[in-house]
Amino acid sequence: MQQQISVVTLGIIDLERSRRFYTEGFGWSPVFENNEIVFYQMNGFVLGTWLKHALEQDLNLRDLRRPGAFSLAHNVARQEDVVPTMARLESAGGRIVRQASKPAHGGFRGHVADPDDHTWEIAWNPAWTIDARGFVSFGL
Amino acid sequence: MQQQISVVTLGIIDLERSRRFYTEGFGWSPVFENNEIVFYQMNGFVLGTWLKHALEQDLNLRDLRRPGAFSLAHNVARQEDVVPTMARLESAGGRIVRQASKPAHGGFRGHVADPDDHTWEIAWNPAWTIDARGFVSFGL
Repeated sequence: MQQQISVVTLGIIDLERSRRFYTEGFGWSPVFENNEIVFYQMNGFVLGTWLKHALEQDLNLRDLRRPGAFSLAHNVARQEDVVPTMARLESAGGRIVRQASKPAHGGFRGHVADPDDHTWEIAWNPAWTIDARGFVSFGL
Repeated sequence: MQQQISVVTLGIIDLERSRRFYTEGFGWSPVFENNEIVFYQMNGFVLGTWLKHALEQDLNLRDLRRPGAFSLAHNVARQEDVVPTMARLESAGGRIVRQASKPAHGGFRGHVADPDDHTWEIAWNPAWTIDARGFVSFGL
């Protein structure tokens, strides 16, 4: 079986509020959108932001909770990119949950929650490679 | 800024129980593991499964909740792969949350929760392409 994830879908409350965070904060462009979902073509997979009640209906689950027991990370090319990226996300409706600092395992990172309490680590990790297409490889 | 996610990290309770689901259920191989985290190299990014208390400490958040308001999808090449994949995940400790069926938007899919209540859609979606490396592209 392919070692592959096709879609990461985030449950959101307000489509426009979420869209602003991702398009203005990260500067990403949707590949598709309608009145309940926005899709972004990512590095080898697709990110969806979908109204939570529709996601719950699709999953056949109720009461999906926030903040969920997961996080997402966006790595940047240089240590000095971390703080400005976090500031831009905050300006676009995000909330700083951990100021940038050096973790024990190396690198430099901080955390920002999106408007729906989904947490993003903004990280500089020199051991991991990111190619020109944005494909990320694990490294030690 | 790159339209890029570097890591998806799932908060888990029992490392061995989670590892069994991902290695035996999906058949994936870790790229790194220690006594609190397992990393898998995915299609252009990295999946981490990390003990929830360590993730909470790293994020500077408490009480990360399950099931969280998100889902992941693994697309398969053929419609007839969906049900056997779900059965294999169930055998490896997953829980069927929605039997496979045809959604209104087309294709064929069902949902399985991992041992930590993180939901996976197992989908056949003929409009989306998956290349030999596992890189997935949005399509209509």
